[in-house]
Amino acid sequence: MMTDQPRLLPMAPPPGEGTPPVFERIAIVGLGLVGGSLALAAREAWPSGLVIGVDRNDVLEQAMVRHAIDVAAEDLMIVSEADLVVLAAPVQQNLAILAELPGRLSHAAIVTDVGSAKRAIVEAGRTLPPDLTFIGGHPLAGSARQGIAFARPDLFRGRPWLFTPDAGAPPDALARLFAFVRALGAVPSAFPSAAQHDHLLAYLSHLPQLVASALMETVGDVAGEEGLALAGRGLADTTRLASSPGDVWRELCAANADEIGQALDRLVDRLRQLRADLPDGRVLTDVFANANRWRERLTK
Amino acid sequence: MMTDQPRLLPMAPPPGEGTPPVFERIAIVGLGLVGGSLALAAREAWPSGLVIGVDRNDVLEQAMVRHAIDVAAEDLMIVSEADLVVLAAPVQQNLAILAELPGRLSHAAIVTDVGSAKRAIVEAGRTLPPDLTFIGGHPLAGSARQGIAFARPDLFRGRPWLFTPDAGAPPDALARLFAFVRALGAVPSAFPSAAQHDHLLAYLSHLPQLVASALMETVGDVAGEEGLALAGRGLADTTRLASSPGDVWRELCAANADEIGQALDRLVDRLRQLRADLPDGRVLTDVFANANRWRERLTK
Repeated sequence: MMTDQPRLLPMAPPPGEGTPPVFERIAIVGLGLVGGSLALAAREAWPSGLVIGVDRNDVLEQAMVRHAIDVAAEDLMIVSEADLVVLAAPVQQNLAILAELPGRLSHAAIVTDVGSAKRAIVEAGRTLPPDLTFIGGHPLAGSARQGIAFARPDLFRGRPWLFTPDAGAPPDALARLFAFVRALGAVPSAFPSAAQHDHLLAYLSHLPQLVASALMETVGDVAGEEGLALAGRGLADTTRLASSPGDVWRELCAANADEIGQALDRLVDRLRQLRADLPDGRVLTDVFANANRWRERLTK
Repeated sequence: MMTDQPRLLPMAPPPGEGTPPVFERIAIVGLGLVGGSLALAAREAWPSGLVIGVDRNDVLEQAMVRHAIDVAAEDLMIVSEADLVVLAAPVQQNLAILAELPGRLSHAAIVTDVGSAKRAIVEAGRTLPPDLTFIGGHPLAGSARQGIAFARPDLFRGRPWLFTPDAGAPPDALARLFAFVRALGAVPSAFPSAAQHDHLLAYLSHLPQLVASALMETVGDVAGEEGLALAGRGLADTTRLASSPGDVWRELCAANADEIGQALDRLVDRLRQLRADLPDGRVLTDVFANANRWRERLTK
């Protein structure tokens, strides 16, 4: 289904004292939690590199105060000198920004994004002129607390960073992206296609999020504040994701609605089987046995 | 719906050096994780008290090695001198043991249990002779790792311990149970009825468990081991409960099937509304807003 090994080995050595930056000039469009953390992590990895930030003025000010960026502008014009452009705005905005890139860069550059749904942006990336190489990216790192205020340079440490290169992507572009995110502490891997990424992530990430939110709403509506005060640790863990922001997830779920819908159908079917068989418990026995097995593999 | 304040204030002072035991002789029937931890906690609180254990011989041996109990037997005869009997076997076994208690005790005693579903055992408790006072109990503490091997004296520290006294229960019996579990570090409260307990717990505990298990099964079946290796922390948190043992939960869910069934229906309805509206996202916006609000109250 996918490969957790890179299809190409990275060419850059691991970073260290005096290691040259994989990219000299990085432009990050959107300095929220992920974009801001990326800026901080890149500056930590390569103090000599240049980090260019694009966002609203109030966000840029915060990013400057935190020393996350060297150069700041509200206008996309500023990316012209970048050799790497990272789209780190919400999914729909990334599409709009990508469409504005042609003609903005003064030389060949690699473009990537950090969105959790990949099909639309990868398809849009194919329309870029030949001097711009788009490879979709998705760091599996985040927090319910959004925004530059919560950005931190170690956000990606030990986390997967998935890429969805087209078959025709220049091999060295993917190798450079792998080396880049490795230097930020992430563990890169490549998917054969954006569709396979979106299918898998519907289960690994989008379904757990929707389930945690719907569960928290359902339990809270019935138990109320007084009842919630009696809850044990199980409810707290199962609903940790329920503080995630609706605006981010609304857009993301719209972008992957077909895959998420199928994942929800699959889960709902199983919950209904479980429900119909509660007094007998044969379905429950199966569900728990399978869940025990997968949970062990998840945590090993 | 319920009160998180005791209906009666405990009469015993907080434990400390030389505090007399709330109960002199405690019999614990079933030395699994909860029964074993209860034994360890009681011995720590009152080294001078007597802890009597009833279980299979191999479990009793482990309990003796861990110094959890003073006296051990496979036969219920041994409880005759106890002034507190705690039923800590699985739900169905507790019912069978309760039925065997009349005539076994040489003097008046309080009987309680630690099961997560309360209606059946509370109803059975009403059939006991007048010298035995039954008050259902439910400590909200546990672990996926069952058995005396994982028992620990601090299992109940800071955790709710719910009681479901009948209206006619002697007031001092509840006060003594409150004082007893407070001395073990737990936070006691009383429910007006077993039915209200079972209704609330279907949401606070049983629904999150079934959702975590069904989610882990669904995600694992689709993602496989290779896919799970790419999962972020969100899936891990949401499925922490999925290592819970099926045999314990099968019995528990059968005992509370009607309430759990309604809780599942409610959640499934909401998931289906969410699914039907994914491209638009209005339901999602509502779900997330409600979930954000309840989650904040849960963790405050």
